[in-house]
Amino acid sequence: MKKYAFGVDIGGTTVKIGLFETNGELSQKWEIPTRKEGNGSKILPDIAASLNDKLKELDIPKEEVAGVGIDVPGPILDDEIVNRCVNLGWGVFNVAEKVRKLTGLDKVKVANDANAAALGEMWQGGGESHQNVVMVTLGTGVGGGIISEGKIVAGAFGASGEIGHMLVNKDETQLCGCGKKSHLEQYASATGIARKAKELLAESSEESSLRGVDQLDAKAVFDAAKEGDKLALEIVDFVGETLGTALASISCVFDPEVYVIGGGVSKAGQILLDTVQKHFVDAAFHASGGTEFALAQLGNDAGMYGAVKMVL
Amino acid sequence: MKKYAFGVDIGGTTVKIGLFETNGELSQKWEIPTRKEGNGSKILPDIAASLNDKLKELDIPKEEVAGVGIDVPGPILDDEIVNRCVNLGWGVFNVAEKVRKLTGLDKVKVANDANAAALGEMWQGGGESHQNVVMVTLGTGVGGGIISEGKIVAGAFGASGEIGHMLVNKDETQLCGCGKKSHLEQYASATGIARKAKELLAESSEESSLRGVDQLDAKAVFDAAKEGDKLALEIVDFVGETLGTALASISCVFDPEVYVIGGGVSKAGQILLDTVQKHFVDAAFHASGGTEFALAQLGNDAGMYGAVKMVL
Repeated sequence: MKKYAFGVDIGGTTVKIGLFETNGELSQKWEIPTRKEGNGSKILPDIAASLNDKLKELDIPKEEVAGVGIDVPGPILDDEIVNRCVNLGWGVFNVAEKVRKLTGLDKVKVANDANAAALGEMWQGGGESHQNVVMVTLGTGVGGGIISEGKIVAGAFGASGEIGHMLVNKDETQLCGCGKKSHLEQYASATGIARKAKELLAESSEESSLRGVDQLDAKAVFDAAKEGDKLALEIVDFVGETLGTALASISCVFDPEVYVIGGGVSKAGQILLDTVQKHFVDAAFHASGGTEFALAQLGNDAGMYGAVKMVL
Repeated sequence: MKKYAFGVDIGGTTVKIGLFETNGELSQKWEIPTRKEGNGSKILPDIAASLNDKLKELDIPKEEVAGVGIDVPGPILDDEIVNRCVNLGWGVFNVAEKVRKLTGLDKVKVANDANAAALGEMWQGGGESHQNVVMVTLGTGVGGGIISEGKIVAGAFGASGEIGHMLVNKDETQLCGCGKKSHLEQYASATGIARKAKELLAESSEESSLRGVDQLDAKAVFDAAKEGDKLALEIVDFVGETLGTALASISCVFDPEVYVIGGGVSKAGQILLDTVQKHFVDAAFHASGGTEFALAQLGNDAGMYGAVKMVL
């Protein structure tokens, strides 16, 4: 009988590995370094060795392992093939097949990390009990993942859920990290929020506690807003309007039951959720007005959870 | 053996019915009026009678019928239940169950008409040979349908594919038909194109063949553009930019292999397709730059084709 499965989240610095029971419970988790030398050729052998060692250590026969789910920071085709992954030095190759050979485990599936995080949050996080979920990750950039009927929507070119690059303001003059401009990521990421704060402080002569802050980042903005600082509240409202309006457009394309908001910026908590939802409801097509909003709950483990979910 | 299936497209004025062979070939098609009196209570009995008569006429036993696919101009939940359909006078009820009872045929599925049209175009129209398709219908309004892995994505509230209500210009002052504003439909529909033409003719003093036109509609604009009229070309470029940019955002949510453009406005043909694609490529996230563009091919039969496809 299958009793166990592995979830593996490959990041640019470390690989997070979880041994799960097939009922979904996380039994053990640990990390190994991501060795990127030699175009990342050591990464998969390192992972396979770590999985094999763990099975030996716990005396688990391979017949009891349901499979290995893996997520990577790059686009994936057909649950198996990575379509270039600059952060790891990888080109185009079949990751699943390689891991099958290295571990002797038959069932191996691969996903993009943002999509896996969305699946993980649907399964045991902020989207629990839902089958149609959009996850929004607000970090240095803005990422996303789309889950339809309980499954990842990868897209024809692996770009489904790349919501950070939706066009939201055609008057923008600065470039997005991707080389084009006017993108959601330029306003709703930690970087975008800090930029907006700097611009507004320079333009306005209004008093604000933000003027005395050492590190003017997204956290400082939300902290000041929670204290009632007027300028900070203006920035939070701007971020909420930009993001809420973009999500209203997303609901006109793929209409989820719930938006799950994660990433570093989401640590701001309820004030962020409420502001985004308010502007979403203002802008949304009437049928979607009741869409739910929730905070992500699995933090950095979301990818690992989503990865293992694919093989359970 | 199952040899036949029915595709039924319920419109506000007529019901189109197709008898298909299970290999996908349309064997016969006919229409009956949509009788809306009594809150549309006669519509399904009329359809059932028409199907039963046809089977009798052709001496086809019910055992040879694979099923009935139906599409309606309203939101559908779970392939079965209509969630209000103002045009037909319908509230919330299980359409599939009703048709099963009335016809004695077991397999009945129901979809929204725009989604069914998208599925039909994927199957035997402009999206043929693709599994991930976004259909864009440019008529009096702007509608759409999303097909993922060969299946309709209906959305949690039946609003997937309602792309006409995506927000594209926050400076708009006039209202969309839905009661909110700044929506794609206000610019890329036949109505929106005529409005833009009127505005531009009033603002500009430039000579244009459009000034002498009796009926200033979308067709007149595209006809003048094809003749090289500068002002008309300006309007076409504006429409192409607005739509192409919106589609670039759609690709950041659901990333299809192909956009299929249909509806009355699409009769403009290649000039429309080329202008939209040009602006799409300018705006799109790099991974999606190679997305294909095609014209719809099934016209008013698309819904009927998509409806029957659901039961084959």
